[in-house]
Amino acid sequence: MTQSRDAFEARLRQIGAERYHDLHPFHDLLHGGGCAPNQVRAWVINRYYYQHSIPMKDAAFMSRVEDPALRRAWRSRIEDHDGTEQNEGGIRRWLRLAEAVGLDPDYVSSCRGVLPATKFAVDAYVRFVREKTLLEAVAASLTELFAPKIHANRIQGLLQNYDFADDSSLSYFKNRLKEAPKDVAFGLAWVLDHADTAEKQEAAAQALIFKTDVLWSQLDALWGAYVDPARIPPGAWTPDEGLLLQKAS
Amino acid sequence: MTQSRDAFEARLRQIGAERYHDLHPFHDLLHGGGCAPNQVRAWVINRYYYQHSIPMKDAAFMSRVEDPALRRAWRSRIEDHDGTEQNEGGIRRWLRLAEAVGLDPDYVSSCRGVLPATKFAVDAYVRFVREKTLLEAVAASLTELFAPKIHANRIQGLLQNYDFADDSSLSYFKNRLKEAPKDVAFGLAWVLDHADTAEKQEAAAQALIFKTDVLWSQLDALWGAYVDPARIPPGAWTPDEGLLLQKAS
Repeated sequence: MTQSRDAFEARLRQIGAERYHDLHPFHDLLHGGGCAPNQVRAWVINRYYYQHSIPMKDAAFMSRVEDPALRRAWRSRIEDHDGTEQNEGGIRRWLRLAEAVGLDPDYVSSCRGVLPATKFAVDAYVRFVREKTLLEAVAASLTELFAPKIHANRIQGLLQNYDFADDSSLSYFKNRLKEAPKDVAFGLAWVLDHADTAEKQEAAAQALIFKTDVLWSQLDALWGAYVDPARIPPGAWTPDEGLLLQKAS
Repeated sequence: MTQSRDAFEARLRQIGAERYHDLHPFHDLLHGGGCAPNQVRAWVINRYYYQHSIPMKDAAFMSRVEDPALRRAWRSRIEDHDGTEQNEGGIRRWLRLAEAVGLDPDYVSSCRGVLPATKFAVDAYVRFVREKTLLEAVAASLTELFAPKIHANRIQGLLQNYDFADDSSLSYFKNRLKEAPKDVAFGLAWVLDHADTAEKQEAAAQALIFKTDVLWSQLDALWGAYVDPARIPPGAWTPDEGLLLQKAS
């Protein structure tokens, strides 16, 4: 049976409450100050792969949208990440974080050393958006509903617990606090408008679940490689690579 | 053998000299004032499908580009077509042309009545950009090298020969005179920089040839359906559809 607009929105929010990656123990470790410098670096390197893929995901979405107005509304997401003349963009902000934690930004932006499991998960998201319905693609973006809370916690936790944390290094998260709510308000309204049958509501909910899996599995991979059992897969980043000090020497 | 930069550029320009659709007899008919109103309308309807697909093509390109700087440089193409806060964009300008020739812009933007052969050709271009190498995708865009001449001829020919032609209805072409040279300067330099082996030069040249085929075959389809033998395929636009007068009455 088709759910009411409010009931369906509540269902989507419940997916976040149960599955969003703020529940993953890696975030407790990171935000609580329990990460060694190399664990923070591993997170920064791997999460960069996600950052760098998001504008490709958004372009893949736009490449399938026939309505110029919807493309126009969506384009600001790419601008937020890739930058404009007035805005350096999220990817550059992330590389400032990389530098602040002692990583060579050229190494990070090369995407060498990213865990294969991270790539598989992130590439699956780009492919999902390229291949599934537009409704499923927009629904998958709705994890941003749950992002402001984790960004606020992260800013507070990092500032409190790590020397590298300051306004400059954390500017990525501060900007997302402004950008994400605008995007997600549009995306949520679009999904609620278009998921007008039980079948479409189910597809949209499954898409959001898929996306929470994409985020969660990245942290599982990070945990296995760099926390416990800390078994780094062949070819993935090792703590002696990509450091700024190496470049200076 | 790898050609020198200059020789390779000359080879690309020669492809335009031999194969660009300014050589197609439909353009003589159109620019020389020989088109009946319905033939102009058929051209406007079918060419709209190309216009409406170009930002999807550019987004498909961006969805495969890992370099944020290249994505940023490419993004202006989407802005030129879809519009910005300051610029209504090429698609809306095209719809003004549609109105000027007596067509309901809602009918035109629905893409109903577009010739199947037009769709096949244009969709093949979007798919080409999605699937081939980035070099081939950029090389295919280089038909814009040859566009300013045809746009200038078109503006002059339409103003001289048709009552609907004025600054407003032809603003699409005037804007392209400004926009295309900027895009193509970037694209040409990129292709010349990246086609650094004989094999890549051959692939880039073939991509440009493919694109000239995409443009040419649209005019062949238009000719067959609306000029000679004027056999309109099942389901394609007939001159009694999509007119502004119908809407008003």
